[in-house]
Amino acid sequence: MLKRYLPILTWLPHYNRRLGVADLVAGLIVTIMVIPQSLAYAVLAGLPAVVGLYASLLPVVAYALLGTSRTLAVGPVAIVALMVAIVALMTGAALSGVAAPGTPEYLQAALVLSLLSGVLLLLMGLLRMGFVANFLSHPVIAGFLTASGVLIAASQIGHLLGVELTSRELLPRLAELIRGLPELHLPTLGIGVGALSFLLFLRQYGRPTLRRVGCSRPLADLLTRAGPVFAVVVTTLVTWQFELAEAGVAVIGQIPQGLPPLTLPGVDLSLWQALLVPALLISVVGFVESVSMGQMLAARRRERISPNQELVGLGGANVVAAFSAGMPVSGGLTRTVINHDAGAQTPLAGLVAAVGIGAVTLFLTPLLHYLPIATLAATITVSILTLIDIPMIRQTWRYSRSDFSAMAVTILLTLVDGVETGIISGVLLSIALFLYRTSRPHSALVGRIPATEHFRNVERHETETVSHVALLRIDESLYFANARYLEDTVYDLVATRPELEHVVLICSAVNLIDASALESLDAINARLKDSRVILHLAEVKGPVMDRLKRSDFLDDMTGRVFLSTFAAWRELSRPSQ
Amino acid sequence: MLKRYLPILTWLPHYNRRLGVADLVAGLIVTIMVIPQSLAYAVLAGLPAVVGLYASLLPVVAYALLGTSRTLAVGPVAIVALMVAIVALMTGAALSGVAAPGTPEYLQAALVLSLLSGVLLLLMGLLRMGFVANFLSHPVIAGFLTASGVLIAASQIGHLLGVELTSRELLPRLAELIRGLPELHLPTLGIGVGALSFLLFLRQYGRPTLRRVGCSRPLADLLTRAGPVFAVVVTTLVTWQFELAEAGVAVIGQIPQGLPPLTLPGVDLSLWQALLVPALLISVVGFVESVSMGQMLAARRRERISPNQELVGLGGANVVAAFSAGMPVSGGLTRTVINHDAGAQTPLAGLVAAVGIGAVTLFLTPLLHYLPIATLAATITVSILTLIDIPMIRQTWRYSRSDFSAMAVTILLTLVDGVETGIISGVLLSIALFLYRTSRPHSALVGRIPATEHFRNVERHETETVSHVALLRIDESLYFANARYLEDTVYDLVATRPELEHVVLICSAVNLIDASALESLDAINARLKDSRVILHLAEVKGPVMDRLKRSDFLDDMTGRVFLSTFAAWRELSRPSQ
Repeated sequence: MLKRYLPILTWLPHYNRRLGVADLVAGLIVTIMVIPQSLAYAVLAGLPAVVGLYASLLPVVAYALLGTSRTLAVGPVAIVALMVAIVALMTGAALSGVAAPGTPEYLQAALVLSLLSGVLLLLMGLLRMGFVANFLSHPVIAGFLTASGVLIAASQIGHLLGVELTSRELLPRLAELIRGLPELHLPTLGIGVGALSFLLFLRQYGRPTLRRVGCSRPLADLLTRAGPVFAVVVTTLVTWQFELAEAGVAVIGQIPQGLPPLTLPGVDLSLWQALLVPALLISVVGFVESVSMGQMLAARRRERISPNQELVGLGGANVVAAFSAGMPVSGGLTRTVINHDAGAQTPLAGLVAAVGIGAVTLFLTPLLHYLPIATLAATITVSILTLIDIPMIRQTWRYSRSDFSAMAVTILLTLVDGVETGIISGVLLSIALFLYRTSRPHSALVGRIPATEHFRNVERHETETVSHVALLRIDESLYFANARYLEDTVYDLVATRPELEHVVLICSAVNLIDASALESLDAINARLKDSRVILHLAEVKGPVMDRLKRSDFLDDMTGRVFLSTFAAWRELSRPSQ
Repeated sequence: MLKRYLPILTWLPHYNRRLGVADLVAGLIVTIMVIPQSLAYAVLAGLPAVVGLYASLLPVVAYALLGTSRTLAVGPVAIVALMVAIVALMTGAALSGVAAPGTPEYLQAALVLSLLSGVLLLLMGLLRMGFVANFLSHPVIAGFLTASGVLIAASQIGHLLGVELTSRELLPRLAELIRGLPELHLPTLGIGVGALSFLLFLRQYGRPTLRRVGCSRPLADLLTRAGPVFAVVVTTLVTWQFELAEAGVAVIGQIPQGLPPLTLPGVDLSLWQALLVPALLISVVGFVESVSMGQMLAARRRERISPNQELVGLGGANVVAAFSAGMPVSGGLTRTVINHDAGAQTPLAGLVAAVGIGAVTLFLTPLLHYLPIATLAATITVSILTLIDIPMIRQTWRYSRSDFSAMAVTILLTLVDGVETGIISGVLLSIALFLYRTSRPHSALVGRIPATEHFRNVERHETETVSHVALLRIDESLYFANARYLEDTVYDLVATRPELEHVVLICSAVNLIDASALESLDAINARLKDSRVILHLAEVKGPVMDRLKRSDFLDDMTGRVFLSTFAAWRELSRPSQ
């Protein structure tokens, strides 16, 4: 019982030296690798860069104690950072008119978002509501990520080119960018585009090139992933050496040295109300992404993660972030892959990384003073390229217009009206489309495939049929949305075939008959009785049958319930006397 | 084409004398029978009694031209009247602070409600959105009708007993009633309780008693149904004769003589906005009730009605009502049954009744001056008894706790917070419960029933199985809400049975595989491949297979697609070498 809520107890007793060495090495690698990313995503969220480091510290400890994934690494992630930026700006503007990043209201909004997300995740975890995440369908997530990638790129392009942009909307921002092009700042442009080109080159050709010059595969992987670290070191040195900051290149500047201060998210009720829905979306999106990654990695190692306990782990991490000057966190793809590939065995690797980042914030922040913002923008831009998934969009179009339309609406509305509208509309549209599809169920008249006990659609296969028996296979659960449709189908059948004596409803695909559908079956039975047609059922599943037995329907039904379609056929297909 | 939109063209060319006589007789009977009802429901809606007559005039003509049901009779109905009363009071209070029935704002609200309902119905009809009504599940409708019955009874009890009640909420109203009991008005009480007892007696014992004294069955039916007319005539005469109006019995009083005036619903935008959702509910509820009745009656005569064209017919009737001093109308149960049983053959019977009621409003309204409100209250109270369906509530409880909970929530919220909250919550809860059920689908390992080609759940039947093949029947369409659940089910299966070599997913109950589920099948296939387990499908339906062929899944799948479970069994159950 205790183990379920504190998963650390499942692995700590079996901990040994071999695992310890592996975790130590992985933790140190992660420490170095995630610094650029942590700083970058804090900047993306409109927060001071150091917040990204704070958010990679205590929240990681909380997740190590509560989470069930052995290798998931939590911290600031791009999508969540983007959502924080949009939400903090919008609610800041709505609540106090103060919308600029860096104001105390803005920082408060980020803390309150962390706290609310954390509490919501904990609640969902304790109520075992992990299934809610399932309602974010794959096309909606893919559409949302693609649109977010575009929004993130748009938010970074000013930093990359050295043009100051003030609009937040996508189109005005692009217009401003074009107007501002003549005044672009060449040193910033050099650093930004240089870092971007370097990272893009490394991403595309890094591994094969390094392998060709003799690196082992793990070393080539590691060096490729270290690209952002390398870019940070080089551009920081260049900026410092050539005094580019004085020439107008934006740099991170003074970072307070020391461990994160204790912060108290304000208890402004109107702020909480305004942030409740955004916090819910942030938590669900972060959760879905984390759990997908966690499940994939666990599957590789033949382990299992518990989605409901993951809610608790992520919830704990976010609550801790709210009290330690952080920002909303989630399982990050890049940091998780680095952690996993570096050989992490248990969450202790995360603890090592937390200690490492703690040491950095204690002692090494002065070294980051001259780190150009443009380098961070390049890091962000490259890392979000994975979000924009054009092949997935094309596949979805090919596979299902209905899924595609949910995806398209999510993309469009995310771009035009923000992440909140985008996701919510996508989810609601997915549900509406599913309900619409199930409300007009497919049904098929089936016939016997000669010399077998198998029955298939008469329109698709060569089958045997007899004119006084209709075998109607209903391809959907029967519930309120399609109950009337079923009536129409049967009545049409009876109206067009006057020679009918038996109608057999084949229920192999009927997984549920609700009270409305039961009412309709009653009506069908009565109506067929008037027309001297006998109603039978076949292949009713156990759970459905159990339920029917609790009603009067089976007593009133004119015909029988056959175990199989074949049994119904054998009995009814002989000509009646 | 024209016939589709003007159904009158389908029957008018074949009209003949025999039909004409039948329609004339039915129309005259309906004229007399529906007068008390029309007056009563207008009073229930808080409108002048004559509005009920106006609403039974031109709207009937509109429906006769546009509707597809031969015998449905439209006019004021109890549920719609109740909804109008609640909505007009609430929005009146919200918009202008003037909430009393009889004020010009109140009358305006009723007209605007008619117009909006009419326009919404027409729109839904032209967009062929009749299916929307299916989302009002049977338990939600039954719950809503039951709660409305209670609310209507509560609204009439003051009139019946001669106690003046001012509160609108259920509980304060009852408290007020109890406090007011000492001051009840005896003559009103006498008329109200007298009429009520007479009508209840007639309803219960009328038919058998009349048969016993020698009436034919149709005559007994007709006289029983004429109860309200009889009560109206007798109590009006008594009130007039004994000058009870002067003694304090509330009567209808002066009714303007003449045809309905032309009215123009105001174009106050805030009023329209406030009434949009209530109008939508009124139209959908009215539509569902009308269509159910229409279908039932059409079925008896081997005819069909077109739900989408019914939307147009009801929409036209409501638009006309808005411009002819009426109130929202719908197909009424009582008037329809009277019309049908009186032998109406075509909508011309409705036209005859409209002319008849026109004659009444032109010449006979002075006769209604002394009609006591208490008599109308008794008529309403008896007619709503059919709404309260306790056996249905009990059956639903027995059949499905999930359907019952939707019903209970609808009843409770309708009683406590009004019809709007009641219906909307009921619908949303029904949908949520359906989604929740489908998100955790039933699945069963099946085995062969010896010596047959039939496969059933191993836990419910004696079956043959082999240890290296798992036949897993999935009892639900695969879509985003349950895609992850499917993965969990298969992974658990593989984890617990190390000897497995083949997993066959039996898709006989899978009516849809959406893009999210396809993604999950891909993941399952890859994961099983890692574990050296081969994934097969069996009994994939035609439409599902067509769609799968448009993706890459079938190429990547390690195993095969079998036509039947038996084919998979025959092929795979032999021990592998």
